[in-house]
Amino acid sequence: MVPGHEIIGRVSSVGKKVKRFKVGDQVGVGCMVDSCQHCEACDEGLEQYCAEAPTFTYNSLDRHDKLPTYGGYSDKIVVSDKFVVKIPKGLDLKGAAPLLCAGITTYSPLRHWKVGRKSKVAVIGLGGLGHMALKLAKALGAEVTLFTRSPGKEKDARRLGAKHVVLSTNEKQMAAVKGKFDLIIDTVPYAHDLNPYIPTLSLSGTLVLVGYLGGLEPALNTVSLIMGRKAVAGSVIGGIAETQEMLNFCGKHGIISDVEVIKIQDINEAYERMLKSDVKYRFVIDMASLK
Amino acid sequence: MVPGHEIIGRVSSVGKKVKRFKVGDQVGVGCMVDSCQHCEACDEGLEQYCAEAPTFTYNSLDRHDKLPTYGGYSDKIVVSDKFVVKIPKGLDLKGAAPLLCAGITTYSPLRHWKVGRKSKVAVIGLGGLGHMALKLAKALGAEVTLFTRSPGKEKDARRLGAKHVVLSTNEKQMAAVKGKFDLIIDTVPYAHDLNPYIPTLSLSGTLVLVGYLGGLEPALNTVSLIMGRKAVAGSVIGGIAETQEMLNFCGKHGIISDVEVIKIQDINEAYERMLKSDVKYRFVIDMASLK
Repeated sequence: MVPGHEIIGRVSSVGKKVKRFKVGDQVGVGCMVDSCQHCEACDEGLEQYCAEAPTFTYNSLDRHDKLPTYGGYSDKIVVSDKFVVKIPKGLDLKGAAPLLCAGITTYSPLRHWKVGRKSKVAVIGLGGLGHMALKLAKALGAEVTLFTRSPGKEKDARRLGAKHVVLSTNEKQMAAVKGKFDLIIDTVPYAHDLNPYIPTLSLSGTLVLVGYLGGLEPALNTVSLIMGRKAVAGSVIGGIAETQEMLNFCGKHGIISDVEVIKIQDINEAYERMLKSDVKYRFVIDMASLK
Repeated sequence: MVPGHEIIGRVSSVGKKVKRFKVGDQVGVGCMVDSCQHCEACDEGLEQYCAEAPTFTYNSLDRHDKLPTYGGYSDKIVVSDKFVVKIPKGLDLKGAAPLLCAGITTYSPLRHWKVGRKSKVAVIGLGGLGHMALKLAKALGAEVTLFTRSPGKEKDARRLGAKHVVLSTNEKQMAAVKGKFDLIIDTVPYAHDLNPYIPTLSLSGTLVLVGYLGGLEPALNTVSLIMGRKAVAGSVIGGIAETQEMLNFCGKHGIISDVEVIKIQDINEAYERMLKSDVKYRFVIDMASLK
């Protein structure tokens, strides 16, 4: 089994009422294990926006016994079948695991903002989220650009699906993409200035934040929003039905995450490396190493 | 004639090639008198977002002679017929004049974000823009709420179309409308804290700024955007075709602006009163008083 926040592997037992799964099925559990199941969001299959907040797989309180959830740091998990997704045959399980987090986090806004063959999409930041955004946007047919501050990322970006790479610190390069993008997926996880990116949105375009939780500083200037009917939005993971749709899409297009598999004994070192962005592009723990 | 930034009256002469208008027609000129006419925005009839910036009726430089434009402070105006709209019969000309500014500024986002019979719309601020937003959202079939800091505005708000009035300084009242609004039209023209309003948006809802040009301070917190796929957007006036659509809609529904008509000699006093928000809800100058 190959868990992280999320967990992936094979079904070892099923409840009597469970029809969708049988022992041995290749399945995954993503970032959520439960939700209220009766609010408007849950009714629409958007459990990630549950009005009572979903129960996250890691570091939430279980709705039934009120005990903390420990995520995928385990060689098994007991979970409602409603929160289990099927992993298409042919997808490598190690590379599929991060699809349940980085994959769905970037796929959901691409779909919500209707990205397709005529779309021009930009991705800010090339890390775990960013590398999935490049792959998925490309597979959806979009022309994809990476915004980065690091000149060294160009080769990898192109391999992952970017047609263009723009150095966001270079004013000339930024000016050259003015008014270009229908959607910008911003994966940067720390406070950063959005103002240089808004002018690169097309008319009625949207910049969607998927990585940063905090205050927008420096202050977002509204003039560039107003003069072009532009928007800054946020999005988090995706619903269970959409996660299955994303997995089926990845199965069809042969898309997995670029991963580095580690043993559980190496987790502290991996954590230190992650803090330095020294990972291409997700660590996956092989839980067989636990024994 | 009854001009302001915008100008309204009757056609006194037409060029040889002009087919759509004849002498004596009841017409108006809104906030724009020209645009590049060849960019993507202009091609889509969104001249307000012209890539070269439109020529505004007031305080722009004319594209031909490079002289400043003086707006509606005149008893006549010479303008391309492309930037002239018809005022439907039956609409009072004095009350119709502000439709070309406050009317289209609020109508355009209501239409872009598809407000209709099942929509719940809130309006922040009851001034020139806000009072039109209430009337138009109501006429489009939405359930309309006014957010205000002034308890005294309740009666007027209900007369203008609000079903509910929420004091934005009252935490209980704010909590009671959590997750309610598909669209919030924010007409406040100065820096103000958006953070209390974002939680009142429904899933995937949008707060659209139509009055404030400046930095978003205090900082907009992204958590409430992300946990509900919400957006903050901007919008300015509307295109010429949409302005005509709005006027036809107002003609059909008998909607005009609430105005106070003044003589040109009283303009300084009116300006002082406007600074104190002492106008319900727009001043209109009767240019006959110029003679």
